[in-house]
Amino acid sequence: MSGWLVIAGLGPGADHLVTPEVTQALAQATDVIGYIPYVARVAARDGLRLHPSDNRVELDRSRHALELAAAGARVVVVSSGDPGVFAMAAAVFEAVEAGPPEWRALDIRVAPGITAMLAAAAQAGAPLGHDFCAINLSDNLKPWALIEKRLRLAVEADFAMAFYNPRSKSRPEGFEKTLRILNDACGDARPVIFARAVSTPDQHIRVVALPDATPDMADMRTMVIVGASNTRIIARDGAPIVYTPRSVGA
Amino acid sequence: MSGWLVIAGLGPGADHLVTPEVTQALAQATDVIGYIPYVARVAARDGLRLHPSDNRVELDRSRHALELAAAGARVVVVSSGDPGVFAMAAAVFEAVEAGPPEWRALDIRVAPGITAMLAAAAQAGAPLGHDFCAINLSDNLKPWALIEKRLRLAVEADFAMAFYNPRSKSRPEGFEKTLRILNDACGDARPVIFARAVSTPDQHIRVVALPDATPDMADMRTMVIVGASNTRIIARDGAPIVYTPRSVGA
Repeated sequence: MSGWLVIAGLGPGADHLVTPEVTQALAQATDVIGYIPYVARVAARDGLRLHPSDNRVELDRSRHALELAAAGARVVVVSSGDPGVFAMAAAVFEAVEAGPPEWRALDIRVAPGITAMLAAAAQAGAPLGHDFCAINLSDNLKPWALIEKRLRLAVEADFAMAFYNPRSKSRPEGFEKTLRILNDACGDARPVIFARAVSTPDQHIRVVALPDATPDMADMRTMVIVGASNTRIIARDGAPIVYTPRSVGA
Repeated sequence: MSGWLVIAGLGPGADHLVTPEVTQALAQATDVIGYIPYVARVAARDGLRLHPSDNRVELDRSRHALELAAAGARVVVVSSGDPGVFAMAAAVFEAVEAGPPEWRALDIRVAPGITAMLAAAAQAGAPLGHDFCAINLSDNLKPWALIEKRLRLAVEADFAMAFYNPRSKSRPEGFEKTLRILNDACGDARPVIFARAVSTPDQHIRVVALPDATPDMADMRTMVIVGASNTRIIARDGAPIVYTPRSVGA
């Protein structure tokens, strides 16, 4: 059996942010599996089968990939960003754990990618330059009460905060509640970065003070980064620089 | 003035984890500046000046880079991993903020890289597949009490935790205290991943239960990842897979 499965991160969008490891895996693959817009980023070629699928079918997609690899195919499951951050790697391993024992013997690797928060941070300066946390604001897979608890504890710990999936059409109220909680818990005007479609032609970066942040500033293509209490803004002509200093006073 | 400054992430070590954006910036540079072992990863060529410097001189190094760029040089400041995560980007922006006004007009960009925690997570499975935090355990630049506070709040929030700079010769007791705090706060046997020299020929990945973790398992080349309360281990022949499920029960 010569099949393998690579769970690969395509980065946030630009080709120049795709690692050579991922490019090489795609060049050797017989099958590429993933959410429709991510599979669309992979160039068609002879001998490569593309298997785009819709959102929210991550476990079905994972089982399909594992079955193909078990049958000898060279399979790449594509995620945007990094596959290990709110993406397909955990889904594939859930399928492995629940699946037939022979799946555990497969050659499965994770090829990391540039995750959205790091691409967004790079465009804004260095807002994640000190201790930080990453929270998925979608309550599809966890109770809202847990999100609220994590937000309050993250503010108490004075982490900078990176938010994935801040807002969707089906849950417009979640991000509004998030901003209310943050204003209540932070009580200051720390910077908030809205980074939309980072590294694509549609990229738009906006920096506002927390009290001025509004729910409509985010959609599902937006990464939101909220500074720590000591995060700073360097004003200049053009976009400001946002960074979190490396030091915290004693 | 045609100078520019790119603060670039070289990734954790392997060439196949360096983005094309960073490779291209290095190909166009006149000057490369950074900590000795990172500058050593850049191939020498005619027309390229290498400026290696020692650890703990980040601000001097940043000012040097800014001065060169202001004088028209094409400068790349290199970090390992991602420059925005416990690395040179925040140091350069600190120097910009404290420096002459003309530095704010410079063409400064951050080129993201694969940060150590994501490379380590990929080798172990998907331990950061759900909400998580990143904490620098060095108390060179912040008081120990703040580290302890963040550790306890991170456990209370049930984040998976990635620790940078867990241990050095000058601070051998810090990581011992960290493990004591974690055992006290977690009170369980969740998995701990010690990932040393990830993606290099020296790579070594070790997975132990929290009560079995000992300080000597980490050094300054080790990334430590501690699971959340629901992080799982899939046993198999060879290295186990560690992953954090995407769902948390209501």
